[in-house]
Amino acid sequence: MKKSLWIAFTLLLLTLMLVGCGRDKEPAAEDLGEALPADALAVASERGLSPDDIRAALMTYTPSGILDEYIMFASGGHSGNVIAIGMPSMRILKNIAVFTPESWQGYGYGSTDSETVLNQGNVNGVEIRTGDTHHPALSETGGEYDGDWLFINDKASARIAVIDLRDYETKQIVKNPLLINNHGSTFVMPNTEYVLEESQYATPLGWEFAPISEYKEKYRGLMTAWKFDRETGRIDPELSFGIEIPPYWQDLCDAGKLVSEGWAFCNSFNTELATGGVEQGNPPFEAGVSQRDVDYLHIFNINKAAEVAATEGKYEVMNGMRVIRMATAVEEGILYLAPEPKSPHGADVTPDGKYLVVAGKLDPHVTIYGFDKIQKAIAAGNATPDEFGVPVLPFDEVMVAQVELGLGPLHTQFDGEGNAYTSLFLDSALTKWSLGGDDPAGYKLLEKTPVQYNVGHIAAAEGDTVSPDGKYLVALNKWAVDRFVSVGPLLPQNLQLLDISGDGPMKVIYDMPMGIGEPHYAQIIKADKIESWNTYPEVGWDPLTQSPSEFATKAGEESIVRDGNNVTVNMTAIRSHLTPEHVPLKQGDHVTWHITNLETAHDATHGFQLGGYNISLSIEPGETTSFEFDAVNSGTYTYYCTEFCSALHLEMMGYMFVEP
Amino acid sequence: MKKSLWIAFTLLLLTLMLVGCGRDKEPAAEDLGEALPADALAVASERGLSPDDIRAALMTYTPSGILDEYIMFASGGHSGNVIAIGMPSMRILKNIAVFTPESWQGYGYGSTDSETVLNQGNVNGVEIRTGDTHHPALSETGGEYDGDWLFINDKASARIAVIDLRDYETKQIVKNPLLINNHGSTFVMPNTEYVLEESQYATPLGWEFAPISEYKEKYRGLMTAWKFDRETGRIDPELSFGIEIPPYWQDLCDAGKLVSEGWAFCNSFNTELATGGVEQGNPPFEAGVSQRDVDYLHIFNINKAAEVAATEGKYEVMNGMRVIRMATAVEEGILYLAPEPKSPHGADVTPDGKYLVVAGKLDPHVTIYGFDKIQKAIAAGNATPDEFGVPVLPFDEVMVAQVELGLGPLHTQFDGEGNAYTSLFLDSALTKWSLGGDDPAGYKLLEKTPVQYNVGHIAAAEGDTVSPDGKYLVALNKWAVDRFVSVGPLLPQNLQLLDISGDGPMKVIYDMPMGIGEPHYAQIIKADKIESWNTYPEVGWDPLTQSPSEFATKAGEESIVRDGNNVTVNMTAIRSHLTPEHVPLKQGDHVTWHITNLETAHDATHGFQLGGYNISLSIEPGETTSFEFDAVNSGTYTYYCTEFCSALHLEMMGYMFVEP
Repeated sequence: MKKSLWIAFTLLLLTLMLVGCGRDKEPAAEDLGEALPADALAVASERGLSPDDIRAALMTYTPSGILDEYIMFASGGHSGNVIAIGMPSMRILKNIAVFTPESWQGYGYGSTDSETVLNQGNVNGVEIRTGDTHHPALSETGGEYDGDWLFINDKASARIAVIDLRDYETKQIVKNPLLINNHGSTFVMPNTEYVLEESQYATPLGWEFAPISEYKEKYRGLMTAWKFDRETGRIDPELSFGIEIPPYWQDLCDAGKLVSEGWAFCNSFNTELATGGVEQGNPPFEAGVSQRDVDYLHIFNINKAAEVAATEGKYEVMNGMRVIRMATAVEEGILYLAPEPKSPHGADVTPDGKYLVVAGKLDPHVTIYGFDKIQKAIAAGNATPDEFGVPVLPFDEVMVAQVELGLGPLHTQFDGEGNAYTSLFLDSALTKWSLGGDDPAGYKLLEKTPVQYNVGHIAAAEGDTVSPDGKYLVALNKWAVDRFVSVGPLLPQNLQLLDISGDGPMKVIYDMPMGIGEPHYAQIIKADKIESWNTYPEVGWDPLTQSPSEFATKAGEESIVRDGNNVTVNMTAIRSHLTPEHVPLKQGDHVTWHITNLETAHDATHGFQLGGYNISLSIEPGETTSFEFDAVNSGTYTYYCTEFCSALHLEMMGYMFVEP
Repeated sequence: MKKSLWIAFTLLLLTLMLVGCGRDKEPAAEDLGEALPADALAVASERGLSPDDIRAALMTYTPSGILDEYIMFASGGHSGNVIAIGMPSMRILKNIAVFTPESWQGYGYGSTDSETVLNQGNVNGVEIRTGDTHHPALSETGGEYDGDWLFINDKASARIAVIDLRDYETKQIVKNPLLINNHGSTFVMPNTEYVLEESQYATPLGWEFAPISEYKEKYRGLMTAWKFDRETGRIDPELSFGIEIPPYWQDLCDAGKLVSEGWAFCNSFNTELATGGVEQGNPPFEAGVSQRDVDYLHIFNINKAAEVAATEGKYEVMNGMRVIRMATAVEEGILYLAPEPKSPHGADVTPDGKYLVVAGKLDPHVTIYGFDKIQKAIAAGNATPDEFGVPVLPFDEVMVAQVELGLGPLHTQFDGEGNAYTSLFLDSALTKWSLGGDDPAGYKLLEKTPVQYNVGHIAAAEGDTVSPDGKYLVALNKWAVDRFVSVGPLLPQNLQLLDISGDGPMKVIYDMPMGIGEPHYAQIIKADKIESWNTYPEVGWDPLTQSPSEFATKAGEESIVRDGNNVTVNMTAIRSHLTPEHVPLKQGDHVTWHITNLETAHDATHGFQLGGYNISLSIEPGETTSFEFDAVNSGTYTYYCTEFCSALHLEMMGYMFVEP
């Protein structure tokens, strides 16, 4: 033993000398060596760290002031938000408010901008202030994440949001006028021309009332292609369109890229057309929708659909949206089906755009389809119609290979070296397997690594682009029993970071509890691709329009203007005072209050809360924010800066007097 | 150099052999040694980690499945919530919804329990759904955190919340009927008899309207002692009382312990009685309140006050609360003042209860007061009244020592070895200094360590108890420029973890971005002190009352009951179906909907969202949750489980039909 240790130390010395050469900002390797014996190794031993743990600690530790290499944007699930996470440190950098109000950011607590955005998502007059975010999509240019925009869906009420990555704020919510739920969204085309949104559970289009007995006749699915305008930074509903599809339940999608650009692929379940009603003695949905051994992959020619949707007479307008009816979609070659093994979850296009991987969920295989084969099968014309008249391409003509991976394949990601990674929900494992091109024998299971408890989606660094980075893979696990200190019956989710670099086996290197949401999917982008702003471009900025605000107030021009019962307050904020410090009102006044943060320094945010009136704002450097309220109650109220901004922050306050 | 390395390696060998002895579950030290050269050290070098970084990485890394030793409960500031963080990993375990709705937890998105709690905090009919949490306080028994309850204040609207640590849920919000803002709260007595809440900015009691010109006559502060009943787990307003105090602005408090048990200490600023109005040519508050070189430490005899508040004729009832008027407080020996250097922030009682440390903020010293000296000064009767008739004890008679620390002393914590730690906001540094007992010469600055950007509060492990643990200290910094990858103009806050163990210098070992709130203060408890529940005690549990729910539904007893336009749905949830799966309604129905989660397995939570109707629930194993709504819009709606619970989770859905 002693001898082997001495050999190890000699190796250590050589390694240290080797890695120490020619590095400038990094510590000399000798320093590392000297630091370890007395100190660090004792710590490791005392804390019971294994050699693997030590390596993992050194891979993920991000020293004070050192920036993370990647940012992961994870959906928050039923938190309704999106969470920005630094990688490899796995630290939460920001919870971005989207469909749900968030008080720290002043989103949905009075600010006119945020109320405007949230109200865009209301449903027939019902104020919706929650959501269920699932699949974030970064904007792409040439199939690469470009770091400009982020899109996310709300499954619960079928809405799409647009987030501007210059300031990490939600700028638009679009309510789908024909759907009341979605799932297969958001997915973007390789140049972000369209943001795709597909329904999940079928309802009549426009979610009109119709008894379940009329399921086959009246219930439908819909693929929606939302046109995104980079100039305005908004989805343009006028230029968007839908494609009617059968009332199967649609699940996940992916957009084609490179050779398959302009196409989209979505899988489905409940091709049984089960309608549930366990309380009436029917099979419950879980059984009813899981009877057939195959469901249908949906294949869309989006470019062709865009042409058709622009041709008078070929579309109908329903609830204000252009819709290509199912018969037209079939006739025009916009929609095809292909059999796919049982109740699949993920549909993922390979980085080269040539193949599509479908994960079987209730089948132990992933099935690989060839885009070229699909095109040939379409041309061959051997399709047979399903019960809605949609052509079903022969499985043998479109399938390239099947790989048996294990139980519950859910979702697939890729590295840049010809490998695919698929999560196994039931096996609680990740698999690595080789892509074989057109050669079925080239598709081989290479490796299987356990993770803790059921894994849903996985996300790889730059994983949905035409050039994935490899390096890191995140498993978005669904259960977390015994992983973390107990915090009551509601547990955090568990995100596990894996090292997939080099040729070594995949290794879990970090467990990250997620106690603020339930991420379903994430995308991971190189941090330096995002050029976000440190402050707004000029003082008096309106973040919603990203232009100067008409309500900006300059220093020295603060005022309180009364017009009958309408009072307008024009306020400024700068360390460490709010001007004016007295706001005299009369009970019953309608108050419009603008605040301009005069700061130009990075991080010089001022918050604002008005007690007793449910107002919470976050006013970033240069921002002008507005809010309105009725002074229903008389009294002496206090407002103050809520963001600890200076040594005299507590002094940054004022009185609002409401005279009875 | 070579020689010194060989010596270092010999030391390493000895260390390894030493720490390797007699440990069972920890890896053999030889394994550590062998693992390092080839692998871990290369990683460290490649990532540019310094020896200090390596040590920090090994101190904070918490391997997969290994539990954190401590839980830190940090206020979320204007997020209105509380955040539970594992230590030393600094991972967010749960964002606990308190004053602000949180959709992931189903808090404030329809569930009757949560709406009931949130509505307790409304202000004269105005629905308040935001807040500004500042100072969490863990319940104590004998001056030790007991892990049962957590209290937190809302500064913006003067409210206190009670969180049950069995399930980490907010059970009660109490609105102070006399205050519209607070700050010096929450602080608990050593056996949690009372939860203390003190006003910050003076207003007339009950925040009645009164012009600022009547400031001295009509504006007042208030110390509130909220009686906490452990049996019911609720604050009892009937048994609570207030003590009227001068219209100085009160700041932070601490409760006495051991010898000083039954007393409380709060500092103040604006003893100038400045009333602001910069827009009228007056000095702004920041200048007006900072003119005097001394402010007043407020010293309360809470036990005596409790007696007086129980004596008919000695209190007045104002807005339903018993109030000891200022004159009575003076007469009965309940309230004393003592001079304290300029605009202090923290007032912190030493673990032995014998001394009180006041941090000067605008003075470079901390000032140490002796409880014994205070008692003697009171007995000596040399006090002179302030302008409100409150006795001011002579500074020289109560002060034990002053220690010059640097610029902007804010807040002090303690270890178990006779040391104190004080944050310096302006110096962006932490200080360590010795407590000297009654000997002024024993108080000495020992060490000063820079942190990154302005540090507000600090929190030490078990730091507010009679027996602090030392070991870890957290700096709650207020700015974070260049610490993290840019995420737009609103930056995360930065919490920095410091190693204060042993005799070595304090070291920053982890930077933790806080992108979901702005923590002001935190308390850190040994994780094993909290006995939280993994599931609710029985199926059909109401978490608000912590008892069986009258609305629990058993499997097989699900129903939909119509009574005119009132419809009651009795639903169950279990992997992987909701029963019933069809809910037929008529437009205009008022719907009361109960869901019982039949699961008994740990982590078997089901979520629930109803699209188009703004309902989001989280139903933990065993829980019964209710919600109500009016079916204002007709249509075919879908509801489903939002928490990915099984391979057939997507199939766990149902239809709600609203017939026009």
